Amino acid sequence: METMTKTEFVIEPGNQEVVITHEYNAARELVFKTLTDPKLIPKWWGPQKYNTIVDKMDVRAGGVWRFVSRDAQGNVFAFHGVYHQVLPPEKLVYTFEFEGAPGHVSLETVVLEEQNGKTISNDNVVFQSVEDRDGMVQHGMQEGATESINRFSALLERICNVTRWNNI
Amino acid sequence: METMTKTEFVIEPGNQEVVITHEYNAARELVFKTLTDPKLIPKWWGPQKYNTIVDKMDVRAGGVWRFVSRDAQGNVFAFHGVYHQVLPPEKLVYTFEFEGAPGHVSLETVVLEEQNGKTISNDNVVFQSVEDRDGMVQHGMQEGATESINRFSALLERICNVTRWNNI
Repeated sequence: METMTKTEFVIEPGNQEVVITHEYNAARELVFKTLTDPKLIPKWWGPQKYNTIVDKMDVRAGGVWRFVSRDAQGNVFAFHGVYHQVLPPEKLVYTFEFEGAPGHVSLETVVLEEQNGKTISNDNVVFQSVEDRDGMVQHGMQEGATESINRFSALLERICNVTRWNNI
Repeated sequence: METMTKTEFVIEPGNQEVVITHEYNAARELVFKTLTDPKLIPKWWGPQKYNTIVDKMDVRAGGVWRFVSRDAQGNVFAFHGVYHQVLPPEKLVYTFEFEGAPGHVSLETVVLEEQNGKTISNDNVVFQSVEDRDGMVQHGMQEGATESINRFSALLERICNVTRWNNI
Protein backbone atom coordinates (compact mmCIF):
# COMPACT_ATOMS: atom_id res chain seq x y z
CA MET A 1 0.00 0.00 0.00
CA GLU A 2 1.25 3.45 -0.84
CA THR A 3 1.83 5.69 2.12
CA MET A 4 -0.61 8.45 1.25
CA THR A 5 1.45 11.59 0.82
CA LYS A 6 0.21 15.01 1.67
CA THR A 7 -1.53 17.27 -0.80
CA GLU A 8 -0.36 20.86 -0.54
CA PHE A 9 -2.66 23.75 -1.41
CA VAL A 10 -1.36 27.27 -1.93
CA ILE A 11 -4.23 29.75 -1.73
CA GLU A 12 -2.88 33.25 -1.15
CA PRO A 13 -5.26 35.95 0.02
CA GLY A 14 -6.32 38.40 -2.68
CA ASN A 15 -5.11 36.52 -5.75
CA GLN A 16 -7.08 34.37 -8.15
CA GLU A 17 -5.32 31.05 -8.28
CA VAL A 18 -5.11 27.81 -6.37
CA VAL A 19 -1.94 25.72 -6.67
CA ILE A 20 -2.24 22.05 -5.75
CA THR A 21 0.88 19.94 -5.35
CA HIS A 22 1.04 16.20 -4.76
CA GLU A 23 3.76 13.56 -5.05
CA TYR A 24 2.69 10.28 -6.64
CA ASN A 25 4.58 7.07 -6.09
CA ALA A 26 4.72 6.21 -9.79
CA ALA A 27 6.61 7.11 -12.96
CA ARG A 28 5.52 10.18 -14.88
CA GLU A 29 4.45 8.24 -17.98
CA LEU A 30 2.08 6.16 -15.90
CA VAL A 31 0.67 9.20 -14.09
CA PHE A 32 0.04 10.96 -17.40
CA LYS A 33 -1.54 7.90 -19.03
CA THR A 34 -3.78 7.30 -16.04
CA LEU A 35 -4.81 10.96 -15.92
CA THR A 36 -5.83 11.00 -19.57
CA ASP A 37 -7.47 7.60 -19.94
CA PRO A 38 -11.27 7.97 -20.34
CA LYS A 39 -11.84 4.41 -19.09
CA LEU A 40 -10.20 5.30 -15.77
CA ILE A 41 -11.98 8.63 -15.06
CA PRO A 42 -14.94 6.97 -13.25
CA LYS A 43 -12.44 5.28 -10.92
CA TRP A 44 -10.95 8.49 -9.50
CA TRP A 45 -12.55 11.73 -10.74
CA GLY A 46 -14.72 13.50 -8.16
CA PRO A 47 -16.18 12.20 -4.91
CA GLN A 48 -16.42 8.44 -4.52
CA LYS A 49 -20.11 8.65 -3.55
CA TYR A 50 -20.92 9.96 -7.03
CA ASN A 51 -21.24 7.83 -10.10
CA THR A 52 -19.24 9.62 -12.80
CA ILE A 53 -19.41 8.86 -16.50
CA VAL A 54 -17.38 10.28 -19.35
CA ASP A 55 -19.61 11.88 -21.97
CA LYS A 56 -16.72 13.29 -24.03
CA MET A 57 -12.95 13.14 -23.59
CA ASP A 58 -10.98 14.04 -26.67
CA VAL A 59 -7.49 14.53 -25.21
CA ARG A 60 -5.84 16.77 -27.82
CA ALA A 61 -5.50 20.52 -28.21
CA GLY A 62 -8.97 21.80 -29.12
CA GLY A 63 -10.69 18.62 -27.91
CA VAL A 64 -13.67 18.73 -25.57
CA TRP A 65 -14.13 16.84 -22.29
CA ARG A 66 -17.44 16.45 -20.44
CA PHE A 67 -18.01 14.39 -17.29
CA VAL A 68 -21.39 13.76 -15.69
CA SER A 69 -21.69 12.84 -12.00
CA ARG A 70 -24.84 11.49 -10.39
CA ASP A 71 -25.50 11.12 -6.67
CA ALA A 72 -27.63 8.50 -4.91
CA GLN A 73 -30.67 10.83 -5.06
CA GLY A 74 -30.34 11.10 -8.84
CA ASN A 75 -29.04 14.68 -8.83
CA VAL A 76 -26.85 15.30 -11.83
CA PHE A 77 -23.74 17.53 -11.91
CA ALA A 78 -22.06 18.04 -15.25
CA PHE A 79 -18.68 19.59 -16.00
CA HIS A 80 -16.92 20.32 -19.25
CA GLY A 81 -14.00 22.12 -20.82
CA VAL A 82 -11.58 22.19 -23.69
CA TYR A 83 -7.98 20.95 -23.81
CA HIS A 84 -5.60 23.69 -24.90
CA GLN A 85 -2.33 21.81 -24.66
CA VAL A 86 -1.59 18.11 -24.37
CA LEU A 87 2.12 17.41 -24.03
CA PRO A 88 2.67 13.80 -22.89
CA PRO A 89 3.97 12.98 -20.35
CA GLU A 90 4.55 16.40 -18.83
CA LYS A 91 1.80 18.94 -19.34
CA LEU A 92 -1.94 19.42 -19.74
CA VAL A 93 -3.74 22.76 -20.12
CA TYR A 94 -7.54 22.81 -20.16
CA THR A 95 -10.54 24.84 -19.14
CA PHE A 96 -13.07 23.77 -16.52
CA GLU A 97 -16.70 24.82 -16.21
CA PHE A 98 -19.42 23.51 -13.91
CA GLU A 99 -22.63 23.55 -15.94
CA GLY A 100 -24.57 24.66 -12.87
CA ALA A 101 -22.70 27.98 -13.03
CA PRO A 102 -22.28 28.68 -16.75
CA GLY A 103 -19.77 31.34 -17.71
CA HIS A 104 -17.70 30.76 -14.58
CA VAL A 105 -14.64 29.24 -16.17
CA SER A 106 -11.31 28.29 -14.72
CA LEU A 107 -8.09 27.54 -16.56
CA GLU A 108 -6.06 24.61 -15.28
CA THR A 109 -2.41 23.80 -15.98
CA VAL A 110 -1.08 20.45 -14.77
CA VAL A 111 2.70 19.98 -14.90
CA LEU A 112 4.24 16.61 -14.03
CA GLU A 113 7.87 16.37 -12.98
CA GLU A 114 9.69 13.12 -12.34
CA GLN A 115 12.02 12.92 -9.35
CA ASN A 116 13.70 9.60 -8.43
CA GLY A 117 10.96 7.52 -9.97
CA LYS A 118 8.22 9.51 -8.24
CA THR A 119 6.13 12.19 -9.88
CA ILE A 120 5.39 15.65 -8.57
CA SER A 121 2.11 16.98 -9.91
CA ASN A 122 1.78 20.76 -9.90
CA ASP A 123 -1.76 21.79 -10.69
CA ASN A 124 -2.39 25.51 -11.15
CA VAL A 125 -6.03 26.62 -11.31
CA VAL A 126 -6.71 30.21 -12.33
CA PHE A 127 -10.14 31.80 -11.86
CA GLN A 128 -11.77 34.81 -13.54
CA SER A 129 -11.72 36.72 -10.28
CA VAL A 130 -10.66 36.54 -6.65
CA GLU A 131 -14.38 36.19 -5.77
CA ASP A 132 -14.75 33.14 -8.04
CA ARG A 133 -11.63 31.59 -6.50
CA ASP A 134 -12.77 32.28 -2.95
CA GLY A 135 -16.26 30.96 -3.75
CA MET A 136 -14.85 27.65 -4.99
CA VAL A 137 -12.64 27.36 -1.90
CA GLN A 138 -15.64 28.04 0.35
CA HIS A 139 -17.63 25.39 -1.52
CA GLY A 140 -15.13 22.71 -0.56
CA MET A 141 -12.64 22.77 -3.42
CA GLN A 142 -9.85 21.48 -1.15
CA GLU A 143 -11.88 18.58 0.19
CA GLY A 144 -13.04 17.66 -3.32
CA ALA A 145 -9.58 17.87 -4.83
CA THR A 146 -8.06 15.92 -1.95
CA GLU A 147 -10.57 13.11 -2.41
CA SER A 148 -9.88 12.93 -6.16
CA ILE A 149 -6.14 12.94 -5.56
CA ASN A 150 -6.40 10.18 -2.96
CA ARG A 151 -8.58 8.08 -5.25
CA PHE A 152 -6.14 8.68 -8.10
CA SER A 153 -3.23 7.74 -5.87
CA ALA A 154 -4.90 4.49 -4.80
CA LEU A 155 -5.73 3.68 -8.43
CA LEU A 156 -2.10 4.23 -9.44
CA GLU A 157 -1.05 1.86 -6.68
CA ARG A 158 -3.46 -0.84 -7.95
CA ILE A 159 -2.19 -0.35 -11.51
CA CYS A 160 1.45 -0.57 -10.34
CA ASN A 161 0.76 -3.76 -8.43
CA VAL A 162 -0.93 -5.36 -11.42
CA THR A 163 1.96 -4.25 -13.61
CA ARG A 164 4.51 -5.65 -11.18
CA TRP A 165 2.53 -8.87 -10.92
CA ASN A 166 2.40 -9.20 -14.72
CA ASN A 167 6.11 -8.53 -14.91
CA ILE A 168 7.09 -11.27 -12.44
CA MET B 1 -16.39 61.92 -35.47
CA GLU B 2 -16.40 60.31 -32.09
CA THR B 3 -14.28 62.01 -29.49
CA MET B 4 -11.89 59.14 -28.77
CA THR B 5 -12.35 58.28 -25.11
CA LYS B 6 -9.59 56.99 -22.93
CA THR B 7 -8.86 53.32 -22.46
CA GLU B 8 -8.13 52.43 -18.86
CA PHE B 9 -5.82 49.57 -17.95
CA VAL B 10 -5.64 48.14 -14.45
CA ILE B 11 -2.48 46.07 -14.04
CA GLU B 12 -1.73 45.56 -10.37
CA PRO B 13 1.74 44.39 -9.36
CA GLY B 14 1.93 40.73 -8.40
CA ASN B 15 -1.44 39.55 -9.66
CA GLN B 16 -2.24 37.75 -12.90
CA GLU B 17 -4.92 39.79 -14.60
CA VAL B 18 -5.27 42.81 -16.82
CA VAL B 19 -8.55 44.74 -16.74
CA ILE B 20 -9.27 46.96 -19.74
CA THR B 21 -12.13 49.45 -19.62
CA HIS B 22 -13.40 51.61 -22.45
CA GLU B 23 -16.57 53.61 -23.09
CA TYR B 24 -18.01 53.31 -26.58
CA ASN B 25 -20.34 55.91 -28.00
CA ALA B 26 -22.88 53.35 -29.19
CA ALA B 27 -25.70 51.19 -27.87
CA ARG B 28 -24.80 47.87 -26.28
CA GLU B 29 -26.59 45.76 -28.93
CA LEU B 30 -24.52 47.39 -31.65
CA VAL B 31 -21.26 46.96 -29.73
CA PHE B 32 -22.00 43.27 -29.16
CA LYS B 33 -23.03 42.66 -32.78
CA THR B 34 -19.94 44.43 -34.09
CA LEU B 35 -17.68 42.54 -31.69
CA THR B 36 -19.02 39.16 -32.78
CA ASP B 37 -19.40 39.67 -36.54
CA PRO B 38 -16.74 37.66 -38.45
CA LYS B 39 -17.05 39.98 -41.48
CA LEU B 40 -15.95 42.93 -39.32
CA ILE B 41 -12.96 41.35 -37.54
CA PRO B 42 -10.46 42.34 -40.28
CA LYS B 43 -11.61 45.95 -39.87
CA TRP B 44 -10.58 46.30 -36.21
CA TRP B 45 -8.84 43.27 -34.72
CA GLY B 46 -5.10 43.72 -34.12
CA PRO B 47 -2.73 46.32 -35.53
CA GLN B 48 -3.86 48.16 -38.66
CA LYS B 49 -0.57 47.35 -40.43
CA TYR B 50 -1.44 43.65 -40.36
CA ASN B 51 -3.83 41.98 -42.72
CA THR B 52 -6.07 39.82 -40.54
CA ILE B 53 -8.36 37.10 -41.80
CA VAL B 54 -10.89 34.99 -39.92
CA ASP B 55 -10.14 31.30 -40.29
CA LYS B 56 -12.82 30.18 -37.81
CA MET B 57 -15.33 32.11 -35.70
CA ASP B 58 -18.14 30.04 -34.33
CA VAL B 59 -19.62 32.40 -31.74
CA ARG B 60 -21.40 29.98 -29.37
CA ALA B 61 -20.37 28.17 -26.20
CA GLY B 62 -17.89 25.50 -27.30
CA GLY B 63 -17.24 27.17 -30.66
CA VAL B 64 -13.72 27.82 -31.90
CA TRP B 65 -12.26 31.08 -33.21
CA ARG B 66 -9.00 31.43 -35.14
CA PHE B 67 -7.61 34.62 -36.66
CA VAL B 68 -4.51 34.84 -38.86
CA SER B 69 -2.58 38.10 -39.22
CA ARG B 70 0.06 38.71 -41.87
CA ASP B 71 2.50 41.61 -41.98
CA ALA B 72 4.00 43.31 -45.06
CA GLN B 73 7.01 40.98 -44.94
CA GLY B 74 4.74 37.94 -45.08
CA ASN B 75 5.24 36.90 -41.45
CA VAL B 76 2.20 35.09 -40.13
CA PHE B 77 0.82 35.32 -36.57
CA ALA B 78 -2.09 33.08 -35.71
CA PHE B 79 -4.33 33.15 -32.64
CA HIS B 80 -7.15 30.92 -31.53
CA GLY B 81 -9.41 30.07 -28.66
CA VAL B 82 -12.77 28.67 -27.63
CA TYR B 83 -15.91 30.54 -26.61
CA HIS B 84 -17.15 29.44 -23.22
CA GLN B 85 -20.11 31.77 -22.82
CA VAL B 86 -21.95 33.89 -25.36
CA LEU B 87 -24.69 35.97 -23.75
CA PRO B 88 -25.89 38.67 -26.19
CA PRO B 89 -25.68 41.59 -25.73
CA GLU B 90 -23.88 41.55 -22.41
CA LYS B 91 -21.18 38.95 -22.00
CA LEU B 92 -18.52 36.93 -23.79
CA VAL B 93 -16.12 34.45 -22.18
CA TYR B 94 -13.40 32.88 -24.30
CA THR B 95 -9.85 31.62 -24.23
CA PHE B 96 -6.98 33.19 -26.15
CA GLU B 97 -3.78 31.53 -27.33
CA PHE B 98 -1.02 32.83 -29.59
CA GLU B 99 0.12 29.90 -31.70
CA GLY B 100 3.72 31.13 -31.44
CA ALA B 101 3.62 30.32 -27.71
CA PRO B 102 1.48 27.17 -27.47
CA GLY B 103 0.19 26.27 -24.02
CA HIS B 104 0.27 29.87 -22.84
CA VAL B 105 -3.45 30.46 -22.56
CA SER B 106 -5.40 33.39 -21.21
CA LEU B 107 -9.05 33.52 -20.25
CA GLU B 108 -10.95 36.64 -21.28
CA THR B 109 -14.29 37.87 -19.96
CA VAL B 110 -15.90 40.83 -21.71
CA VAL B 111 -18.87 42.45 -19.97
CA LEU B 112 -20.83 45.24 -21.69
CA GLU B 113 -22.93 47.65 -19.65
CA GLU B 114 -25.17 50.30 -21.16
CA GLN B 115 -25.21 53.75 -19.53
CA ASN B 116 -27.21 56.58 -21.13
CA GLY B 117 -26.95 55.16 -24.62
CA LYS B 118 -23.21 54.59 -24.30
CA THR B 119 -21.57 51.27 -23.56
CA ILE B 120 -18.91 50.52 -20.99
CA SER B 121 -16.80 47.56 -21.99
CA ASN B 122 -15.05 45.79 -19.13
CA ASP B 123 -12.55 43.28 -20.42
CA ASN B 124 -10.87 41.04 -17.86
CA VAL B 125 -7.91 38.97 -19.05
CA VAL B 126 -6.56 36.32 -16.68
CA PHE B 127 -3.20 34.64 -17.28
CA GLN B 128 -1.79 31.33 -16.04
CA SER B 129 0.79 33.16 -13.96
CA VAL B 130 2.02 36.59 -12.96
CA GLU B 131 5.05 35.95 -15.24
CA ASP B 132 2.81 35.31 -18.25
CA ARG B 133 0.84 38.48 -17.50
CA ASP B 134 3.95 40.59 -17.07
CA GLY B 135 5.48 39.11 -20.22
CA MET B 136 2.44 40.11 -22.29
CA VAL B 137 2.51 43.61 -20.80
CA GLN B 138 6.23 43.91 -21.61
CA HIS B 139 5.52 42.77 -25.18
CA GLY B 140 3.20 45.70 -25.78
CA MET B 141 -0.21 44.38 -24.74
CA GLN B 142 -1.41 47.86 -23.85
CA GLU B 143 -0.35 49.40 -27.15
CA GLY B 144 -1.88 46.49 -29.08
CA ALA B 145 -5.15 46.58 -27.16
CA THR B 146 -5.39 50.35 -27.44
CA GLU B 147 -4.97 50.19 -31.20
CA SER B 148 -7.66 47.51 -31.53
CA ILE B 149 -10.01 49.50 -29.31
CA ASN B 150 -9.43 52.69 -31.29
CA ARG B 151 -10.02 50.87 -34.58
CA PHE B 152 -13.15 49.27 -33.11
CA SER B 153 -14.35 52.67 -31.90
CA ALA B 154 -13.84 54.26 -35.31
CA LEU B 155 -15.63 51.34 -36.97
CA LEU B 156 -18.60 51.75 -34.62
CA GLU B 157 -18.71 55.41 -35.53
CA ARG B 158 -18.80 54.61 -39.25
CA ILE B 159 -21.53 52.03 -38.70
CA CYS B 160 -23.56 54.52 -36.63
CA ASN B 161 -23.25 57.18 -39.32
CA VAL B 162 -24.37 54.78 -42.03
CA THR B 163 -27.25 53.69 -39.82
CA ARG B 164 -28.23 57.29 -39.17
CA TRP B 165 -27.93 58.05 -42.87
CA ASN B 166 -30.09 55.05 -43.77
CA ASN B 167 -32.64 56.10 -41.18
CA ILE B 168 -33.00 59.66 -42.47
